[in-house]
Amino acid sequence: MKALEEAIRRQGEGIGTEIVKVDRFLNHRLDTALLVAMGREIAAVFLSDQPSLILTVEASGIALALTTAQALGNIPVVFAKKHASSTLNGEMYSATIRSFTKGNSYDMRCAAHCIDKKDRVLIVDDFLANGEAALGMLSLIRQAGALCVGIAVAIEKAFQKGGRALRAQGIKTLSLAAIREIRDGEILFQEG
Amino acid sequence: MKALEEAIRRQGEGIGTEIVKVDRFLNHRLDTALLVAMGREIAAVFLSDQPSLILTVEASGIALALTTAQALGNIPVVFAKKHASSTLNGEMYSATIRSFTKGNSYDMRCAAHCIDKKDRVLIVDDFLANGEAALGMLSLIRQAGALCVGIAVAIEKAFQKGGRALRAQGIKTLSLAAIREIRDGEILFQEG
Repeated sequence: MKALEEAIRRQGEGIGTEIVKVDRFLNHRLDTALLVAMGREIAAVFLSDQPSLILTVEASGIALALTTAQALGNIPVVFAKKHASSTLNGEMYSATIRSFTKGNSYDMRCAAHCIDKKDRVLIVDDFLANGEAALGMLSLIRQAGALCVGIAVAIEKAFQKGGRALRAQGIKTLSLAAIREIRDGEILFQEG
Repeated sequence: MKALEEAIRRQGEGIGTEIVKVDRFLNHRLDTALLVAMGREIAAVFLSDQPSLILTVEASGIALALTTAQALGNIPVVFAKKHASSTLNGEMYSATIRSFTKGNSYDMRCAAHCIDKKDRVLIVDDFLANGEAALGMLSLIRQAGALCVGIAVAIEKAFQKGGRALRAQGIKTLSLAAIREIRDGEILFQEG
């Protein structure tokens, strides 16, 4: 998506060979108009799959999940929780996420009443790198007995294995911008 | 706001005398259409104050902040962070939030580049109870040298002191639903 690639080029920052800092428009300060446009782009690709629910994970996925849900006719959004909460109790689905990049792990949780077994779930997130979060959400959907119709992310780090792993499972995977390489602070995009 | 009060009545849950569980439509599973309507309601009240930026805090405030920002002509949103992040560095504003209800404390942080001193900032959040989070965000705005034009929340627990404290400071404070009391599981709203 041209507008997103341009925002990454102009406002993003490549750090080392793996980190892309996008806190000026995507995951700290949010460019509202760009997020609305991104949501429409995702909706156009997945409309025919008739998603009934968007699943994301707190906190950076929520904004794009919401604009996508709006563009799909105001379908509901569920954001899985990474942190314990006094009101998160009752029957629950959960998945342990090991982050290779951060070297830590956390439990991703979702109340069982949030996903119905008849739901056609579209996963939305800001980043796809090694795929840990996406596979965790896929596990929550499967625990609910629901169907995952695909996954859409703003930025895929195509040099990491998440996208390949999901596509190898036959999951329809869309990234609005795919980064091939980060070299000397420069962010290089994949063609096509 | 009638539609929100109805959602609270039908899908919310009063626990003890202080907790309102709204995870079926507001802070875990999101009712997208309701959030869009709530954003419009807030925008109508604050349009004349010409906000240039919405400030909220992760994670539950993000959805309402974004729909409010859309209704105000796609102004940007900043969500303050409660958790450390590998890319949250550089010059920073921060406030320590002591939660009396939860008995813990955390640092709320925001990169300095996120708020300009010329910004007219509207604070948006899901809940207003004792006001710790709101006062923390007010502190971030003041550290930036910017102006706070008001605060809007989905649900005010009017039996706790946050709303009174903000109004006593002369801050324009809007709650879309104000709860007077939670008694035997029943949620009672304030009139008007």
